[in-house]
Amino acid sequence: MINIKENEKLMPLNHSCAHLLAEAVKKLYPEAKFWVGPVIEDGFYYDIDLGDKTLTDDDLPVIEKEMKKIAKGNKRIIRHELTREEALDKFKDDPYKIDLINNMSDDEVITCYTQGDFTDLCRGPHVESTKELRHFKLLRVSGAYFKGDSKNKMLQRIYGVCYETEEDLNKHLEMLEEARERDHRKLGKELGIFMFSDLVGKGLPMWLPNGFFVRRTLVDYITDKEIKHGYKHVMTPSLGSVDLYKTSGHWDHYKDDMFPAMELDNEAYVLRPMNCPHHMMMYQNSLHSYRDLPLRVAEIANDFRYEASGALCGIERTRAFTQNDSHIFCTNEQIKEEFKGVIDLILDVYKDFGFKNYSFRLSLRDKNNKDKYFGNDELWERSEQELREVLEEIGADFYEAEGEAAFYGPKLDVQVKSAIGHDVTLSTVQLDYQLPERFELTYIDKDGSKARPVVIHRAILGSLDRFIAFLLEETKGNLPLWLNPVQVIVIPVSSEYQGEYASKVYEELKKNDIRVELDNRNEKLGYRLREAQTRKINYTLILGDNEKTDNTISYRRHGEKDTTTVSIDEFVILLKNEISTKKI
Amino acid sequence: MINIKENEKLMPLNHSCAHLLAEAVKKLYPEAKFWVGPVIEDGFYYDIDLGDKTLTDDDLPVIEKEMKKIAKGNKRIIRHELTREEALDKFKDDPYKIDLINNMSDDEVITCYTQGDFTDLCRGPHVESTKELRHFKLLRVSGAYFKGDSKNKMLQRIYGVCYETEEDLNKHLEMLEEARERDHRKLGKELGIFMFSDLVGKGLPMWLPNGFFVRRTLVDYITDKEIKHGYKHVMTPSLGSVDLYKTSGHWDHYKDDMFPAMELDNEAYVLRPMNCPHHMMMYQNSLHSYRDLPLRVAEIANDFRYEASGALCGIERTRAFTQNDSHIFCTNEQIKEEFKGVIDLILDVYKDFGFKNYSFRLSLRDKNNKDKYFGNDELWERSEQELREVLEEIGADFYEAEGEAAFYGPKLDVQVKSAIGHDVTLSTVQLDYQLPERFELTYIDKDGSKARPVVIHRAILGSLDRFIAFLLEETKGNLPLWLNPVQVIVIPVSSEYQGEYASKVYEELKKNDIRVELDNRNEKLGYRLREAQTRKINYTLILGDNEKTDNTISYRRHGEKDTTTVSIDEFVILLKNEISTKKI
Repeated sequence: MINIKENEKLMPLNHSCAHLLAEAVKKLYPEAKFWVGPVIEDGFYYDIDLGDKTLTDDDLPVIEKEMKKIAKGNKRIIRHELTREEALDKFKDDPYKIDLINNMSDDEVITCYTQGDFTDLCRGPHVESTKELRHFKLLRVSGAYFKGDSKNKMLQRIYGVCYETEEDLNKHLEMLEEARERDHRKLGKELGIFMFSDLVGKGLPMWLPNGFFVRRTLVDYITDKEIKHGYKHVMTPSLGSVDLYKTSGHWDHYKDDMFPAMELDNEAYVLRPMNCPHHMMMYQNSLHSYRDLPLRVAEIANDFRYEASGALCGIERTRAFTQNDSHIFCTNEQIKEEFKGVIDLILDVYKDFGFKNYSFRLSLRDKNNKDKYFGNDELWERSEQELREVLEEIGADFYEAEGEAAFYGPKLDVQVKSAIGHDVTLSTVQLDYQLPERFELTYIDKDGSKARPVVIHRAILGSLDRFIAFLLEETKGNLPLWLNPVQVIVIPVSSEYQGEYASKVYEELKKNDIRVELDNRNEKLGYRLREAQTRKINYTLILGDNEKTDNTISYRRHGEKDTTTVSIDEFVILLKNEISTKKI
Repeated sequence: MINIKENEKLMPLNHSCAHLLAEAVKKLYPEAKFWVGPVIEDGFYYDIDLGDKTLTDDDLPVIEKEMKKIAKGNKRIIRHELTREEALDKFKDDPYKIDLINNMSDDEVITCYTQGDFTDLCRGPHVESTKELRHFKLLRVSGAYFKGDSKNKMLQRIYGVCYETEEDLNKHLEMLEEARERDHRKLGKELGIFMFSDLVGKGLPMWLPNGFFVRRTLVDYITDKEIKHGYKHVMTPSLGSVDLYKTSGHWDHYKDDMFPAMELDNEAYVLRPMNCPHHMMMYQNSLHSYRDLPLRVAEIANDFRYEASGALCGIERTRAFTQNDSHIFCTNEQIKEEFKGVIDLILDVYKDFGFKNYSFRLSLRDKNNKDKYFGNDELWERSEQELREVLEEIGADFYEAEGEAAFYGPKLDVQVKSAIGHDVTLSTVQLDYQLPERFELTYIDKDGSKARPVVIHRAILGSLDRFIAFLLEETKGNLPLWLNPVQVIVIPVSSEYQGEYASKVYEELKKNDIRVELDNRNEKLGYRLREAQTRKINYTLILGDNEKTDNTISYRRHGEKDTTTVSIDEFVILLKNEISTKKI
């Protein structure tokens, strides 16, 4: 997807289109006052004060029509420079513009842009004439508080986008439609995956039965997989003392992203933003010998972060989420092997899901700014080189990002390209020399001396919540057979004539551990088929007299029109085979 | 177990023994001052101020010897009455006694008891002579703050117990030893089930790999069982807005047991003490018809309560725990059937675990105090009668407790008798007419009108944490095969001669999904066998030349001495059979 804000041609085009919007609105609503109208990644918007008037999406075609009319006037767009005094005088009746001017720095050149008899205060740049503004679309309108502060007045924000050609615009609109159809918030609601409630709290997802099923299946999948890869699963509490987070350093560096502390008599607790400190304490709980390392502690961990309410987005960005987390405690000599083990696990999982479109980013230290980082030169150079070697050995497609390492060690992010073109970071591996130091972790080395282990933080599916959002968007809600809460629905053509046979087929499938439903309702066949389609059930069985007579079933895959007739046994084998593949 | 405090004979006996203790301490430590020495359920204690002196358990035999010596003096124990003035004068040098006297009410008769030249202020009653005090034992010493306030001075608290016969005393001591061996805190540590860390926080259990395995297995067991019984599992967040708990009424009635609220800009959140309100909001999220009811919403739910640090006890009583919870939404007509369904489920689970020693308590309304309760007469009478009928129909051993119902509805508690004689409430079923009202829950009835559903709260395993504590105590840590993290350990007599064969057996068992370990270490056989014993692994395989030659294995069950020799296949069948039974 093109980032319009950073595109040399589209940026001024969209900027001018925002002015065109403002001129049209002013024509239609002469009382309108204008705050700001910036270009954003996917177009532009303008925040407008219309007094008590609230716009709806139905108003947009009228405004659009007015914009087209003005654009056809082929007016030149002319830049003027003003002194601060001239500007303050020119906009003296417009408190929004006065506010903007007063917030400009003294050395900034104040400019206005004029098209015909419409002038707006603006930094620019703009295109040369309104005639260039031909391929645009107003997308939606929403309320937006002045300066984003809910104590201020609510303005009307109109979003739009402009392209150079009709083809580009249509592509953009198709992409928006595709994104809308794939929006996990819409799908999550339709499929009964999750819900939110303001009374429960913003950003706190409630997993409905279907969503719980998907979560449970994923949790079992990754837990079993990790156990096979030598991980030890544990469970630690969702909160910790403030002192724990002071010891880890999070209290100093991460407090703003955490829920506030709960103060008690002589104690203070806080909801944990991450579970590393808990795992450190678990390691500290017993003596370790070099023979016990590596120790791979894993947890499906509930964590909590206080995200601003504006940043929340469905289950993609929440205030309560679950991480597929692990901390590997190992010796310096084991780093390379452990790192390789983690990448093997990542690739193993991605292969199961059929992810192919991903890339590795190796984040290294900024060599010109070594003071920023914890640990000595030799350690950094060796570990960076080891990580690089592992990526080269497995022939991974990776790039290096100098200066992007965490201050406590180098890291690797795995980014998967989503169906609508976003880069989603699912997995991450991070070396950490710092927490073992802060928690004074030790092991007894071969020579009997105490040595400091290294910690590798890693997540494979990342946040389970975000992963499920990703799955929904990737599949358009068509969950693969192993993950779908309902796999098969049995529909007799008529419950009167084939109802009994349908029950028999239903029981037979149930006996084979298939998640099956029977729709024996006295409703029209077409109605029942459409409902099965809407619910995105993988297989619909349609049973008529032929099937009943031949003791067969006819199945239709979701989204397909053809039906295939086979015996029940063959159908069960087909299902079992498909369940064994986890590809999405 | 006899409650000594409530036993007519043992109460004065133990009371007098406390005085005997005090006299002995005064002889040995003339500077000693005495606070209170009450009789408790399992004996007595005395709180003593010894200045800077701290007693240890090693001091107890010396004190005990002195007590025996005094007791042999056959001194009569004589009661005196005193006026307040006489008492204040008599104890004028003892601030503790002065404090006690000043806190006595005016109409209380002040009494002293004297034996020989030792007198103590005391309400009595006592036995007639010290010669009755023959079968006693001092058990332990600990610090105890004066009046239980940590700001006050730390006193020395000596615990003891006294019986009429040596036999009764020995029985008591054996029972204490049994309880010590079964103490889940000791077993939990030895078996690597859980740990605590003060830096993480008091009462916040950290589940180690073995403990996580047990939890996961139990969670899967009960979740699958509930799904078969028609429950829909969900997952809701560990916190909610304060407004949610104001709506439910918990904020007014339960706040003191909750963690404090987390106040944010315009929001306030609180860790949830129970998850009922979340499930109410989930019901409220969609329209319901009478046809959809009953709706059985279940959750393995993380809850948090702020227990006083003194009340915490291992994983039996914690500040963070997990409930096997459910809320059934049904019509009034469905109460009886749903109630029966829950009891069926309870009995089904108890049968799996082999629990036989349990009883039902039906808690009813206090008919003379109807104002205390929510809901009308007819509703109460009908539902109480229905619950009673269900218990009678299934022939349950139950008793009725009038006045013990919750204010929102009648309830049933199922109490299981533990190996050391405690009554442990595992399961509970509660009718609730109130929450549906507070959350304004409705369903569309047959005639199209809106009706109010009833809610049944129920827990089967109760708190999973407490359930695991119970399991550990019941089994002395000898977990049944299906729950034990390590089921089999393979030990070659000599790793040199039978090591390879042992590896083969190990691989074969692993292939059959047995949780098996191989101890091929170059350690003495006896050492390795003892370790397997300590770890309470169910089966130890001992492989010598005979087994290697005959392609067999010899197994020894945990705690037994005999070994049995069978083929590997036979052994696997034996294991699979045993795994299928869940009895403890």
